[in-house]
Amino acid sequence: MQGGDRLPATRELAGLIGLNRTTVSAAYAKLEAAGLLEGRVGRGSFVARRTKAEEFSKVDWEALLPPLQSFRLSPVSAAVNFASSRPSQESFPLAEFRQLAKEVVESPEIAEILQLGSSYGYGPLRRYLLTEGAKTGSVRSGDDVLITNGCQQALDLLARVLVTDGTPVLLEDPVYGGLLSVFRRAGANIIPLPVGDAGLFLEGSESLVMQHRPRLLVVTPDFQNPTGSTLSLEQRMDILGLARRANMPIVESSLYHDLRYSGNPLPSLKQLDTVGNIVSIGSYSKIAFPGLRVGWVIGPSPLIARLAEAKQASDLHSDQLSQAILLRFAQSGELGRHIQRTRHLGSSRLRTVLQSCERHFAPLVRFTRPEGGMSLWAELPAPLLAEDLLRIAESRGVSFLAGSYFSVRRGHHRNLRISFGGLPHSEIERGISILGSIVREQLQIHRPAEYAEPMTALV
Amino acid sequence: MQGGDRLPATRELAGLIGLNRTTVSAAYAKLEAAGLLEGRVGRGSFVARRTKAEEFSKVDWEALLPPLQSFRLSPVSAAVNFASSRPSQESFPLAEFRQLAKEVVESPEIAEILQLGSSYGYGPLRRYLLTEGAKTGSVRSGDDVLITNGCQQALDLLARVLVTDGTPVLLEDPVYGGLLSVFRRAGANIIPLPVGDAGLFLEGSESLVMQHRPRLLVVTPDFQNPTGSTLSLEQRMDILGLARRANMPIVESSLYHDLRYSGNPLPSLKQLDTVGNIVSIGSYSKIAFPGLRVGWVIGPSPLIARLAEAKQASDLHSDQLSQAILLRFAQSGELGRHIQRTRHLGSSRLRTVLQSCERHFAPLVRFTRPEGGMSLWAELPAPLLAEDLLRIAESRGVSFLAGSYFSVRRGHHRNLRISFGGLPHSEIERGISILGSIVREQLQIHRPAEYAEPMTALV
Repeated sequence: MQGGDRLPATRELAGLIGLNRTTVSAAYAKLEAAGLLEGRVGRGSFVARRTKAEEFSKVDWEALLPPLQSFRLSPVSAAVNFASSRPSQESFPLAEFRQLAKEVVESPEIAEILQLGSSYGYGPLRRYLLTEGAKTGSVRSGDDVLITNGCQQALDLLARVLVTDGTPVLLEDPVYGGLLSVFRRAGANIIPLPVGDAGLFLEGSESLVMQHRPRLLVVTPDFQNPTGSTLSLEQRMDILGLARRANMPIVESSLYHDLRYSGNPLPSLKQLDTVGNIVSIGSYSKIAFPGLRVGWVIGPSPLIARLAEAKQASDLHSDQLSQAILLRFAQSGELGRHIQRTRHLGSSRLRTVLQSCERHFAPLVRFTRPEGGMSLWAELPAPLLAEDLLRIAESRGVSFLAGSYFSVRRGHHRNLRISFGGLPHSEIERGISILGSIVREQLQIHRPAEYAEPMTALV
Repeated sequence: MQGGDRLPATRELAGLIGLNRTTVSAAYAKLEAAGLLEGRVGRGSFVARRTKAEEFSKVDWEALLPPLQSFRLSPVSAAVNFASSRPSQESFPLAEFRQLAKEVVESPEIAEILQLGSSYGYGPLRRYLLTEGAKTGSVRSGDDVLITNGCQQALDLLARVLVTDGTPVLLEDPVYGGLLSVFRRAGANIIPLPVGDAGLFLEGSESLVMQHRPRLLVVTPDFQNPTGSTLSLEQRMDILGLARRANMPIVESSLYHDLRYSGNPLPSLKQLDTVGNIVSIGSYSKIAFPGLRVGWVIGPSPLIARLAEAKQASDLHSDQLSQAILLRFAQSGELGRHIQRTRHLGSSRLRTVLQSCERHFAPLVRFTRPEGGMSLWAELPAPLLAEDLLRIAESRGVSFLAGSYFSVRRGHHRNLRISFGGLPHSEIERGISILGSIVREQLQIHRPAEYAEPMTALV
């Protein structure tokens, strides 16, 4: 109702909602006393037009709420979108998905799937993950599993259970912005561990750890987001040693592990660990269908019990239909076939993006050379800044994410993340070429001194 | 691998994983130095058996983690389960669900549904909720909607955005334990507002509010969980006036609103509000399929923007397949027909539970008389305690939730919640009858003085 609208007569409303007329009259009187209704003799009751007092009593939401963060909630629509790290929609195995989804929907289990479930996750999926993990050494005796809404929720629940205000946490820098925001919100004291083309930079990490005594270390050993870098076997052993000496749990994100396009697979930290300090998080979202939110945490059962409790308070449990469909997708072998196809596609996309970078970036713009995953990390020559490049690039139909989004201390101003995971070859080539031209143009403008030098010498 | 297992020779492993043998040897040496491997001359390298040092370096998870809360993560399996507030699985419209789910799976939209979505929710569902809400006055101009994983996540996100340590929050007492745990975890200073058979007890609430200046009030006007009580129109007006004078937002849970079995529907706070201070949360989980986690928050857009940001950090977005299926379920009219059937079933279940309570509880055990929803609230005669009753009842195959689970200050020790929503009539009758007998038996044991009195007089 709007100010000025006429209300039904008390007798009429009483009949309509089955209440005593006296009750309705009393309510009208209260509304009128509160200035919300205006009785007009002989004409009935009207919704009062907004009064000064009312404007005053309206909650000032902007004043009540914390300021909005600056990071983007959804990817920009650009002709060439290097901003979003997601699989290509065209490569979704839709026919297989449709078939398996219909089988689940037709199955007798559907009634149970549609009923309230367990905070730990859908039983058959949990059993499958534990059994498969045990075969590859990714599940230890004493481990349990919690199903989450993708890796993001796994990180969020871990932060809820392990982090309070000021808790020191060791994170890679640069690192996925969604991971940063989880630990920032939880109030963690984030200690950056530099990561680059050669993986983690571990020099000095021992004294860093002994000084700060981090509650945990979060690391992505394979094709880290945003750098695309992979830890060598030696680095993996070093980190395990470091964690063991410091009595520090490691949260290992295995999100991209299956997306290796070249080189040889390396064992995960969880597989190498002999002590039991590793918590592994994984997801079907990056390798199958990101619109279905199914991920997991595997780790020591006392931790999983606390995470399940936090999960219960967060959203009771994960959607069971998607869990059941993805389980069938994995069990039927379709997931394995899809990963093979994705690797094949990814491998040629990676070749294209690296060739394009060689052609249009080198040697001005430096870039990492990942062996898998969905992103690489580039560095502009001084004095160019990624935010400036982004503004110009967007006006020419190319987007990416600027380095500061991935930075623990809001640095990395000359860096950009190029996500090539979901793009056709021609777009990759065109996008990198456009970025390369902008860089060269901007260098002409912003480095006049260098180009001017010979000029002045000539004069 | 287990302690004592033999590792492949360095040359063999180097070939296997495509690394330089020197690298592998270096890794082995490191492992050996760390005490994880044992080299045995002429026999190769073995995984070290767990050493004292290793046991020491194992993270002590129990010491690291907060204690487990005492509340149950999953309902007890009992012959008559009054503990779980969930719809009856037998009444699920499976044929209709299967048909509509298959239509969604076959539709051309499926590729988009399976792709990464927006933190705000699936666009077509958001538009539907806003359009339908505007028709009934449940959406105001300036409102927006966020899709969540059921009501639980809606509450959790609201607490994340609006509550920090010590924030005063006004909650009904008793109230749903999952709501309590959200605000407890967020560090709220919870101020209880008593609720009973006659709805909220508002006497003194004005001075309570002016004293504590709560950041928000959370209220369930229809068939509150656990009491089953409904606010009268007058109480609704009183609360709106209170909130307006205190400049305090109200979070209104409309979870059970559609589940009215008797009496006449009353307008929601959101519908009565003329100022814009009401945030409404709702869900398909209680009225359709709880295994699909789809709920929402409708409120002023500045709030929804912050909630979407918190949602992004929590789990990116809700599962899109279930959103699309439930939208189709609503749009096709099947949801409306299902609600009609559910009301019909609920109405006769409610009659059964009230008749059983009259027969087996009255006058010893007092109980509320809800007009809808899934639960009623009973009070044992002194000195009986609900926890004691529960232990005995479980041994006779009946379960329920004890009052302390719903209590802001860990009181309500003589109360119990009887959830009748999903049970067949015969079980309801049998369960209440068993509880009634236990109460009478226990009174014989625990009130010997009363029964003994005439005896001593006779002597």
